[in-house]
Amino acid sequence: MGIVVQKYGGSSLADAAAIKRVARRIVESKRAGHDVVVAVSAMGDSTDELLDLANEVSPLPPAREMDMLLTAGERISMALVAMAISDLGFTARSFTGSQAGVITDSVHGKAKIIDVTPGRISSALEDGHIVIVAGFQGVSQDTKEITTLGRGGTDTTAVALAAALEADYCEIYTDVDGVFTADPRIVPTARKLDRVSYEEMLELAACGAKILHLRCVEYARRYDIPIHVRSSFSHLEGTWVVPDPSFTAPDSPEGETMEQAIIAGVAHDRSEAKITVVGVPDKVGEAARIFEALADAQINLDMIVQNISAAATSLTDISFTLPRADGQTAMKALAALRDEVGFASLLYDDKIGKISLIGAGMRSHPGVSAKFFSAIAAAGVNIQMISTSEIRISVIVDEGLVDAAVAAAHTAFDLDATEVEAVVYGGTGR
Amino acid sequence: MGIVVQKYGGSSLADAAAIKRVARRIVESKRAGHDVVVAVSAMGDSTDELLDLANEVSPLPPAREMDMLLTAGERISMALVAMAISDLGFTARSFTGSQAGVITDSVHGKAKIIDVTPGRISSALEDGHIVIVAGFQGVSQDTKEITTLGRGGTDTTAVALAAALEADYCEIYTDVDGVFTADPRIVPTARKLDRVSYEEMLELAACGAKILHLRCVEYARRYDIPIHVRSSFSHLEGTWVVPDPSFTAPDSPEGETMEQAIIAGVAHDRSEAKITVVGVPDKVGEAARIFEALADAQINLDMIVQNISAAATSLTDISFTLPRADGQTAMKALAALRDEVGFASLLYDDKIGKISLIGAGMRSHPGVSAKFFSAIAAAGVNIQMISTSEIRISVIVDEGLVDAAVAAAHTAFDLDATEVEAVVYGGTGR
Repeated sequence: MGIVVQKYGGSSLADAAAIKRVARRIVESKRAGHDVVVAVSAMGDSTDELLDLANEVSPLPPAREMDMLLTAGERISMALVAMAISDLGFTARSFTGSQAGVITDSVHGKAKIIDVTPGRISSALEDGHIVIVAGFQGVSQDTKEITTLGRGGTDTTAVALAAALEADYCEIYTDVDGVFTADPRIVPTARKLDRVSYEEMLELAACGAKILHLRCVEYARRYDIPIHVRSSFSHLEGTWVVPDPSFTAPDSPEGETMEQAIIAGVAHDRSEAKITVVGVPDKVGEAARIFEALADAQINLDMIVQNISAAATSLTDISFTLPRADGQTAMKALAALRDEVGFASLLYDDKIGKISLIGAGMRSHPGVSAKFFSAIAAAGVNIQMISTSEIRISVIVDEGLVDAAVAAAHTAFDLDATEVEAVVYGGTGR
Repeated sequence: MGIVVQKYGGSSLADAAAIKRVARRIVESKRAGHDVVVAVSAMGDSTDELLDLANEVSPLPPAREMDMLLTAGERISMALVAMAISDLGFTARSFTGSQAGVITDSVHGKAKIIDVTPGRISSALEDGHIVIVAGFQGVSQDTKEITTLGRGGTDTTAVALAAALEADYCEIYTDVDGVFTADPRIVPTARKLDRVSYEEMLELAACGAKILHLRCVEYARRYDIPIHVRSSFSHLEGTWVVPDPSFTAPDSPEGETMEQAIIAGVAHDRSEAKITVVGVPDKVGEAARIFEALADAQINLDMIVQNISAAATSLTDISFTLPRADGQTAMKALAALRDEVGFASLLYDDKIGKISLIGAGMRSHPGVSAKFFSAIAAAGVNIQMISTSEIRISVIVDEGLVDAAVAAAHTAFDLDATEVEAVVYGGTGR
C-alpha cells in the first residue's frame, strides 16, 4: 500500500482526550499498512487566543510577527499528536511547515504554496515513522521567512503534501460526515454525497459551503489528488471529491458506477454585501473607472450586474456584491469618484444572502434555471440579482429569506433524503 | 555605541501589559543609540502549561517532541514583544533559536550550545531593526533537530549571543534588583552587590543562588562578556558580573575602584540529600566501586567526605550529597552493591541544607573558616559535613536550621546593610 495523507482540524484536536483519539485513528491507518503523513491545525480555539493576545499588545501587529505568533499553534498540536502516537507504541516525527519543505511566496497571512520539497518527510517514512506536519504554514522561497497560508490553510497543506508525496489519496477529517446537498442545519433532510467532482466542489466552496476551502480543492484538481472528506468522530464513509463520478479511489468501496446526478447541491452564503451605483453615465469607460478604483482598494468582487440603460436617460445602474468586511472601504473608494464619474448616488445593503444551485449535469439538462427560479418564487422569495456559470446558478435574495429559498430549491430538485442523515459531532462547526 | 544584548525572563513577560512594558524598556536602549538584541523566555507559566498538556497526552513523551512542544512558548513571546515594539514606532524582527544560528549538540532537553552563527541577526541589525530571539532553544548541528537548553537556558542564549555578536555587555533583566549578599527573603538586611567576579558568581550559582544559571556564567567567563543583572521593574543599577572588581563596563557608572571585599555573599541550597555508606572496608578500590556505580546511574554528586578509618576496625564511613530527586535511584544502585563491597548499612537523610560562604578575598585572608564555623556554632547549629574550594566554604546542617546559619554568617562577616534594600517585584521569583 502507498502513502495516505490525513488532515485533522482544530475541532478534532480540542483537548488532550481528543488528541489521543486522533492518535488512535492515525495508528489504525498505519496498522492497516499505509505510510501515514498527517497535517494538523492548532488545537480548538487556540488560534483565536493567540489573536486576542496580539490585539492586546498592538492594534496593528506586523504581518511577519503575526505569522511567527500563529504558527506556534500548530507546533503545539503536532508535538502533542506525536507524543500520543508514541504512547500507543508507534514512533512519530513532527515537522514544522518549514522543515516539511512547504515553500511559499512571501505574502504574510495568506501565502500561496509554490513548491513542496518533502525530503525530511520521505526519510522519516523510510525509517518507519508516522509523520506529523504543522498545517497552515510554510517558509518563503526568497526571504526564508515563516509564512501562514490563511483560511483553510491546513486543508491545502494536506493536499499539497499528498501531491508532492504522490499519495494514494488525502483524507480530510472534520466534524461532519461529508459533503451534503445543503447545510444540514438549514435543510434537515439534506443527503450526504458519496462522490462529488472537483469542479462541483470548487463551485460549492466558492458559494459558501464551508467544508473545504477553495484553494485546497483547486490544488487537488491540479494534481489529481482524490480527497476523502469524513468525520473524525465516526468510521462512516464520507464524501469522495474526485475527477469524475466514475472515479474509484484505492480502498474506497467498489464503485457502483453511478450516473451523474444533475444537481450536486444547494449552497448559501451570508457573508456578502451589495452595492449599487445609481445613475452612471452610459459611456465607454465609466464602469471601468469604478472597478479600477475597487481593484486599487484590493477588494474582490463577486457578482456584477449592469442593467441596460433606458435609452431616454442614457444612465445605467451597476450593482455588485463583495465581502461585507470590505463594505466600508468600498463605499469610501466609490464616494471619492462621484464627481469624476458623475453618478447619482450609492446604495449599500448588507442584509442579503446568496443561494447557489450547483451541478455538472446542468450543462446537458435545459430548464434547470427556470425550475430554480420558479421554486424560489413559489416560496415567496424575491430575486434581486442573478449570475450563472456553466455548472452554477446563483441568486441574491433578502438575508431573512435565505433558509426558505434553500429549502425550496433542495426540494424542487428532489435532493431530500427520506430520513435525516446528518450529524454534526464537534462544537464549533469549523 | 555597540551592541547590547538583553534578556527578559518569564516573570517579566507574564501578560500583555508586561510585554508592553518590556517593549518600552527595549526601545529606551535603542533610543540611547545601542543596537539591541533581546533574548526572551516563554510568558509567565506558559511552559508549565505546555508540560501539563504533554503529561495529559503521554506519561513518557519522547524528548524530541517535548522540545518541539516547549519551543512554542518562546515563539509566542518573541512575536508579541516584536509587535509591541512595532506599536512604539520601531521595527523589530523575531527569530527562533534555529533562525538566530544557535547551534547545539543533539541532547534533547538539555542541549549545549556549541556554536552561534548570527548572520540573520547581523543583517537585521544593519537594516536598523531591533532583534528578538527565542531563548532556551537551538538546532542540533548533526541532525538539524530543534533542541532546548534546559534550566537557565535563556540566560545562556543571551550570553552566547553577546559573545557571538561581540556585544559590549549583556543585561539580564529579572524580578530582583541584582545579586545580593544573601537571599533577602531569609536575610532582610542583605545588600546588593555592585560588582561580583565571574569566579564568585560561579560559586554562588553552584551553591544555590538562583539568580543566574551556572552555564550562563561559565559562558560569560569564557568569552569575557560583562553581565549586568538588574530589575525589569525599576531603573536602578543592578549587579555587574565582571572579570574582576576593577572592571568598568561601557555605560556603567564610573568605577569608584573598590578594594575587593573579602566575602561576596552567603548562599544556601535546600535541594540536596545526604547518603552515608557505613562500615566500608578500608581497602584500595572500595570507594571507587561505590562512586562508579553512582556514575553509571548518571548521578552528579556534590560534596564527598570520607573519615579516616579507626585503625582498630579497618572500616570507614563515606558520606556524600546529591540532588534529592536522585536520592532513591542512588539508594537502589548502592543497595545492589552491598554484598560485593561488604559495607554495613546505608543512611539516607533529605532533611539537610547547605550553607556556602563565597569570596575571592578569602584566598589572602586566613581565619575565614574559623570565623564562619564559630558564627554557625554560636547560632546553635551543628555542622554535619564540610567542603571547601579556593574561594568557598560549604557546610551541611539540619534543614530547619538553614535560615539561622545564613543569618549568623551574614552578620559575622559584616555584610548586613543598615537598612533593607531588597525588593522582589515579580510574583514567581523565577
